[in-house]
Amino acid sequence: MIPSAEELKLAHEQIQAFVHNTPVLTSSSINKLYGNDLFFKCENFQKMGAFKMRGALNALTNLDDEQKSKGVVTHSSGNFAQALSLAAKSLGIKAYIVMPESAPEIKKRAVAGYGGIISICASTIEAREQAANHIVKNQGATFIHPSDNIDVIIGQGTAAKELLEVHPNLHAIFTPVGGGGLIGGTALACHYSNDDVLCFGGEPKNADDAKRSLEAGHIIKPESPNTVADGLKTYLGEHNFPIIRKLVEDIFLVEETEIICAMRDIWERMKMIVEPSSAVALAAVKKSGIRNQKIGVIISGGNVDLNTLPF
Amino acid sequence: MIPSAEELKLAHEQIQAFVHNTPVLTSSSINKLYGNDLFFKCENFQKMGAFKMRGALNALTNLDDEQKSKGVVTHSSGNFAQALSLAAKSLGIKAYIVMPESAPEIKKRAVAGYGGIISICASTIEAREQAANHIVKNQGATFIHPSDNIDVIIGQGTAAKELLEVHPNLHAIFTPVGGGGLIGGTALACHYSNDDVLCFGGEPKNADDAKRSLEAGHIIKPESPNTVADGLKTYLGEHNFPIIRKLVEDIFLVEETEIICAMRDIWERMKMIVEPSSAVALAAVKKSGIRNQKIGVIISGGNVDLNTLPF
Repeated sequence: MIPSAEELKLAHEQIQAFVHNTPVLTSSSINKLYGNDLFFKCENFQKMGAFKMRGALNALTNLDDEQKSKGVVTHSSGNFAQALSLAAKSLGIKAYIVMPESAPEIKKRAVAGYGGIISICASTIEAREQAANHIVKNQGATFIHPSDNIDVIIGQGTAAKELLEVHPNLHAIFTPVGGGGLIGGTALACHYSNDDVLCFGGEPKNADDAKRSLEAGHIIKPESPNTVADGLKTYLGEHNFPIIRKLVEDIFLVEETEIICAMRDIWERMKMIVEPSSAVALAAVKKSGIRNQKIGVIISGGNVDLNTLPF
Repeated sequence: MIPSAEELKLAHEQIQAFVHNTPVLTSSSINKLYGNDLFFKCENFQKMGAFKMRGALNALTNLDDEQKSKGVVTHSSGNFAQALSLAAKSLGIKAYIVMPESAPEIKKRAVAGYGGIISICASTIEAREQAANHIVKNQGATFIHPSDNIDVIIGQGTAAKELLEVHPNLHAIFTPVGGGGLIGGTALACHYSNDDVLCFGGEPKNADDAKRSLEAGHIIKPESPNTVADGLKTYLGEHNFPIIRKLVEDIFLVEETEIICAMRDIWERMKMIVEPSSAVALAAVKKSGIRNQKIGVIISGGNVDLNTLPF
């Protein structure tokens, strides 16, 4: 049920030629503010600006030749659409991307720019799923879920794996929690590290479905979540929930003001552009009460619209 | 007259425990836009957010014990004030910083936060120099010029030295040109590299004193320069001008719109916060007409006010 250390290692070997081994940055002034020695794994500098490139590549690499020849399909209005398009392009595979008509033009252009074949559908989950199923049926394409796919989960874990290769003796790693792919993969990397590194999540209080799912012991879907961390409005899935339940230490909830404050701290003090979702992980470090430890933080991505900053 | 390769090497050895060996980032989409393989040496991720930390540290390290015990003084309203304060703090030396009364509160607070001892003076060059001279006379402090000091110049060259250590076969390195410390040091690092790497500068057309100085063969001071790249309004000095004249290949002038466009390209595509001055170097790459080469770009710093962005 839990993927093996060998699978994580293999995933990293498979994808490393196609991704950046992103830098790990530190900041004395952030350390002072947050009371720990923080090591930021900067997936905002990853290709297409987010960790999602890793999972998409790993899922594609694990397809057999017939599957590769028929292409892949996903529905997404966000980073995974771009990630799958670019990953597929890198490997010479066709990617069909179902996007809701409400998706911003800039995201449609980005997907098209990476070579994704876009199908526009109505802006409901049902319409998206129907459109994707249609492509699976007609083209024989393989559906790749953005977070609830075991190869995607393992692929996302390679960011933490790289972080632990250079900083093996961390006390813990924090990630944001959205669909569960990143924290699931990170929990695997922590679990298979040599030093019992703990894995914690950060989640907006306004989108606390993962925290509640852990407490309830089954997946709870959010009801109209309203948070600035728009990448975290999704919910856990059947493939990542068991991993998270078993291997994640805890999830800390953070307020919207805490997210925006952490985001501004990173922008101003570390000179890097991060999405609100990434700031959730840093805000969670403060919320956790953990102090004077070496802590890893996965900066999930940097895809923000500079015209609509929350500060 | 031209500092030796040995001096550059020694500078790097002396300061490397106190600075970040900043990451070198690349971006496929920027490469496509600018027609070259670009390698960005990210001094925006340097301590206090700019390359100036390097020169300040090297100048301080080269003081004798008596000088160290009496402290140092500079006048600056910008990054060098913070750099000298932090460098001095790292080495247990007193730093007196003369700042004009017109300097933004945020910069005064930053200097004070790094332990600098601030003297406020009137907002003229004469008043600044007078106040600094007063401290030299009364405290016995050593004056350190932000760019026209040979140890500062050599220290700034260590950024390009680190870049060339990981990417030795660059065709050229581009830097912005302000007071001449960064480009002077970078020219030294290129000159002493194994592969005849060229050194080019970028300068705002609205502050083209360095370009005109090279053409005239003597230092020309700018007349009320008006550019968004506010770090580049200064002029060359007697210590860096001979180095620049001898070792810099050319300086390219760029328009304000080109600076802002390059800045936005870096923010949006590389997810990092850079000052307008840093964007001048990238804009100059485009202006140079050089294509299909491996080019280094020194990103000088990331200290911008998020409330007053030019886009």
